[in-house]
Amino acid sequence: MKYQAKSRIWIESDTGILLGEGRVRLLQAVEQFGSISAAAQSLGMSYKKAWNLIDSINKNADRPAVVKNAGGSGGGGAVVTDYGKQLIVIYSALNQSCWKFLDVEMEKLAVKLDALNEG
Amino acid sequence: MKYQAKSRIWIESDTGILLGEGRVRLLQAVEQFGSISAAAQSLGMSYKKAWNLIDSINKNADRPAVVKNAGGSGGGGAVVTDYGKQLIVIYSALNQSCWKFLDVEMEKLAVKLDALNEG
Repeated sequence: MKYQAKSRIWIESDTGILLGEGRVRLLQAVEQFGSISAAAQSLGMSYKKAWNLIDSINKNADRPAVVKNAGGSGGGGAVVTDYGKQLIVIYSALNQSCWKFLDVEMEKLAVKLDALNEG
Repeated sequence: MKYQAKSRIWIESDTGILLGEGRVRLLQAVEQFGSISAAAQSLGMSYKKAWNLIDSINKNADRPAVVKNAGGSGGGGAVVTDYGKQLIVIYSALNQSCWKFLDVEMEKLAVKLDALNEG
């Protein structure tokens, strides 16, 4: 049987959780829709929950990841800052490299297990 | 602010989930107590749930990780096999190396973020 190692990662700062899979999906949705309420809706999440998550990201980051636009007649939207975009990139990079790393490590450890299997 | 990457890992085989944090803790408890019911109790888990988890581990592994002893007068106990012990070791090794890896990766990525911060 082939064994595969899987992972779920998240990033914490000194003050609390910064990013996990759900938070990154939310940031990506805000980036896509330019609005917290539209992003929340697309994820089947209440506006309150989405806002609380974004508030938590902003408070736990060095710089805000999302800023609200003072809107015109249509009301204000929200924008993912350059810093927020960079956080998304970093989270994805970390995930990818972690998966690759675990594949290699698991391969090595599986060899030991197989040896035991045959022993 | 210092950012730290955290991870939760699990191992899957072709047929389903083999090991995660909870399953490893259960195996360790069976190893400690020599009994599934005592292990379940020590973790505040029902016997049924513990048995289902162990059954799932055994079914998804190449070899059984836990075997029941045909007990004497005191009823049967349970033993973690050499294979099961090796699985515990591998899961711990994978976790440790993953944490170390993520620390190093996060350090590298944080340098980029800091550069952006000052930019």
